[in-house]
Amino acid sequence: MTEGRPTAHSQVTLSRIMTAVDVNLYGSVHGGVIMKFIDDVAGASAARHSGGIAVTAAIDEILFLEPVRVGDLVHVYAQVNWTGRSSMEVGVTVRAERWDQFGTDAVKVGTAYLVFVAVDKDGQPRTVNPVIPDTPKNERRFAEAQIRRAHRLASREAINKHRSEKQEGRT
Amino acid sequence: MTEGRPTAHSQVTLSRIMTAVDVNLYGSVHGGVIMKFIDDVAGASAARHSGGIAVTAAIDEILFLEPVRVGDLVHVYAQVNWTGRSSMEVGVTVRAERWDQFGTDAVKVGTAYLVFVAVDKDGQPRTVNPVIPDTPKNERRFAEAQIRRAHRLASREAINKHRSEKQEGRT
Amino acid sequence: MTEGRPTAHSQVTLSRIMTAVDVNLYGSVHGGVIMKFIDDVAGASAARHSGGIAVTAAIDEILFLEPVRVGDLVHVYAQVNWTGRSSMEVGVTVRAERWDQFGTDAVKVGTAYLVFVAVDKDGQPRTVNPVIPDTPKNERRFAEAQIRRAHRLASREAINKHRSEKQEGRT
Amino acid sequence: MTEGRPTAHSQVTLSRIMTAVDVNLYGSVHGGVIMKFIDDVAGASAARHSGGIAVTAAIDEILFLEPVRVGDLVHVYAQVNWTGRSSMEVGVTVRAERWDQFGTDAVKVGTAYLVFVAVDKDGQPRTVNPVIPDTPKNERRFAEAQIRRAHRLASREAINKHRSEKQEGRT
Amino acid sequence: MTEGRPTAHSQVTLSRIMTAVDVNLYGSVHGGVIMKFIDDVAGASAARHSGGIAVTAAIDEILFLEPVRVGDLVHVYAQVNWTGRSSMEVGVTVRAERWDQFGTDAVKVGTAYLVFVAVDKDGQPRTVNPVIPDTPKNERRFAEAQIRRAHRLASREAINKHRSEKQEGRT
Amino acid sequence: MTEGRPTAHSQVTLSRIMTAVDVNLYGSVHGGVIMKFIDDVAGASAARHSGGIAVTAAIDEILFLEPVRVGDLVHVYAQVNWTGRSSMEVGVTVRAERWDQFGTDAVKVGTAYLVFVAVDKDGQPRTVNPVIPDTPKNERRFAEAQIRRAHRLASREAINKHRSEKQEGRT
Repeated sequence: MTEGRPTAHSQVTLSRIMTAVDVNLYGSVHGGVIMKFIDDVAGASAARHSGGIAVTAAIDEILFLEPVRVGDLVHVYAQVNWTGRSSMEVGVTVRAERWDQFGTDAVKVGTAYLVFVAVDKDGQPRTVNPVIPDTPKNERRFAEAQIRRAHRLASREAINKHRSEKQEGRT
Repeated sequence: MTEGRPTAHSQVTLSRIMTAVDVNLYGSVHGGVIMKFIDDVAGASAARHSGGIAVTAAIDEILFLEPVRVGDLVHVYAQVNWTGRSSMEVGVTVRAERWDQFGTDAVKVGTAYLVFVAVDKDGQPRTVNPVIPDTPKNERRFAEAQIRRAHRLASREAINKHRSEKQEGRT
Repeated sequence: MTEGRPTAHSQVTLSRIMTAVDVNLYGSVHGGVIMKFIDDVAGASAARHSGGIAVTAAIDEILFLEPVRVGDLVHVYAQVNWTGRSSMEVGVTVRAERWDQFGTDAVKVGTAYLVFVAVDKDGQPRTVNPVIPDTPKNERRFAEAQIRRAHRLASREAINKHRSEKQEGRT
Repeated sequence: MTEGRPTAHSQVTLSRIMTAVDVNLYGSVHGGVIMKFIDDVAGASAARHSGGIAVTAAIDEILFLEPVRVGDLVHVYAQVNWTGRSSMEVGVTVRAERWDQFGTDAVKVGTAYLVFVAVDKDGQPRTVNPVIPDTPKNERRFAEAQIRRAHRLASREAINKHRSEKQEGRT
Repeated sequence: MTEGRPTAHSQVTLSRIMTAVDVNLYGSVHGGVIMKFIDDVAGASAARHSGGIAVTAAIDEILFLEPVRVGDLVHVYAQVNWTGRSSMEVGVTVRAERWDQFGTDAVKVGTAYLVFVAVDKDGQPRTVNPVIPDTPKNERRFAEAQIRRAHRLASREAINKHRSEKQEGRT
Repeated sequence: MTEGRPTAHSQVTLSRIMTAVDVNLYGSVHGGVIMKFIDDVAGASAARHSGGIAVTAAIDEILFLEPVRVGDLVHVYAQVNWTGRSSMEVGVTVRAERWDQFGTDAVKVGTAYLVFVAVDKDGQPRTVNPVIPDTPKNERRFAEAQIRRAHRLASREAINKHRSEKQEGRT
């Protein structure tokens, strides 16, 4: 179970047209709809890499760069950027083909980095095969995932430290 | 438009029962469903604080602590923890009352920190009233939001630096 | 199984934001959507009081006082007002926070009284613990539920009498 | 606008197959789903009789006689039983063809009586044409609607009396 | 299992009101929504005739004659026109009552012919009872179904011939 | 407006994971769900080719080759195979990646040929640019579309002839 798999093995694309059901009060597609779409594709990618069940453990960052509109054809692209023992960082890019400009290039409208944990039938973490970056771009993404992870851990540590100091201060 | 508002002013709760539509293949509620629920309540909180339209700009962190199951009564609590010029950090807590243990205490099943930007009718950022932490706990959350923001900016800077070094390295 | 439970034990609140999916042709939220929301919260309340399965047997009265609009944050509050052997009256109040007046008081937009029957796994009625009104207001609601029940039974009896007279008249 | 219309003019039938989306935790179709279906057909019937917009004002009684199951073909039949100045009583019958017994007689699974008010574009009540019962059965229903109305008004009066006595008792 | 059944035995009607969820970008109801509705009713008709599971094998022709609009009350009528060994042709007619012209005659807005195959629990084809046309109109439909079937088979044969010629041409 | 466009210009792919909402009583994905998905992608393809609004006019043939299951990642591929004056034949292929065999080749589970008509704002047919088959495979598809069209017209003519003979026979 520890043989590596190239990044390309985990690449998944989902594509759908946004409908009237998906819009918020202000006429553009609800951020939560895009989020759910991102989670769908990222979950499929993590399942494919790890050959089994994987659950969303955390979302490091979702950026919405441009509004999405009803009728747009939206593509979400996911791949496993980095693997730990049982956790995986999945990177997602969101692109929209504007419904009134079909045939022109799709616009990048969002990016996200999610952390998934592979689990067994009882919900216990299981070991995942290491991902092997297969292009220079994917090597760069592997390294960036490590930077993100380091800052995420540092941020949590700083906050925990702040909390415990506050609690000491109360005594 | 620059008079402060206490944290309590922005507190919003949504509650709903999870249904068969919400579950993934593995019998528990889809992470994406919870995410959309989180975004709904956070958006309402940001709209309430800023008295107008606010859009999701980024999600700093979503943690899923426990699975949610069909029939659970799920509550999402949101409040504006911190404000900048036109951006706001909204903190969200997710609690579930287990459907087979109704009447016992709700379990904390997730937390999230989202960044919203207040915009005008043309989608341009507009200034928001500062939030005024109204309890020691909310003062602590205000400070923690600043730590998260600092690490988020540092993480992005480190990644941008890494990328430009890589690109120089290519020449 | 016959030990009493205070009214407060059965109190449940659900809250959600109304969306474009929920509106009728005339721009306000469909009565049927609110009805389903009322049934959801009342069912949760009856399940909580009776510690098991409960099914809607009848709805005594639903009043819609004010229209609900897209974007409104709607709260439904339920509690068991009265109990018989295996039936329970659940009272529901519906309140709406207007999306363009967030932060002002929620408006009462509807009320309803529903009758649920507690059932076992085979769908047979089972005995429920008596509800014990725990405040003067809840004592008043208990008494009113009895009045409603008396009139409901009287109304059905009058109609049955009318029907059998009509059928005799046919001979 | 005051010329009468026969009961038959307002008869509307809706029919659909119940799906997995419609079931509750216990495997049968959610009462709230049937309720919404009842409100849909009753609203269409009231709109047809009154030739314009009509909104649900109250529901006098909904009875669920038998559970409905996934796959059942459910028919809801509505007609205007009685008219006042601007209000109408709509009677609804719900029948189910069991999916595993297609071709046998449909089972009566519920009945409901709803009160609708005809409104103009500004939401103000408008006068409706009187309904003219066109069969002995519809004459009987017209009379029964009057009995229900009388008991509904008597029930409300009794409850209001009880409330004001309680409030006097507090002084 | 080979005793004949009259056409009337397989007749099923579904009726529902089109909502905002069902419309496409151009304000009329999405063709795909009507298609799904057609498949629903045709599947129920095939199940009723064959007394068990039946799956869509092909759709010979769907014609959309008139646009359907939000608020329209749409009826779909299905019946088994023709039976082979295990396949059935189901004919569907779609009619709409315009929401702003309730009470006038419904407009025919579409027709469709679908082919279903009756299958057993393992998905293997099973023999169906022959349909016995019970009116001159249904005799005509039986004959027309045979014409459609002949042309469908001829069309596939012509295309297969064209393909194999092309492939020979490649050598 | 009469300059040709290569087949490739009109190619559109949609991809989504099938959920519990999509299944029928027998555990596999409802044919109507796939049909709607096919219509979505075909409509996008026709809109892209014709640079504007296009509506489904008829469906020549939908074949379901294999059942689709919950969790499968389904891709629908569409392209304009043939163009007339204002009508277009769109060919669709449906492939499924089995959720328990992610990473293996997707299975072809269906094909469809749909006819769309390009319309202007008033719903009147408008002229479309001719499609120019850009590969031998697409040349073959262009020719096959013509065969299908010829047989479709012949089938309708034969049926119309049959109907008028029947009606003469009645006199």
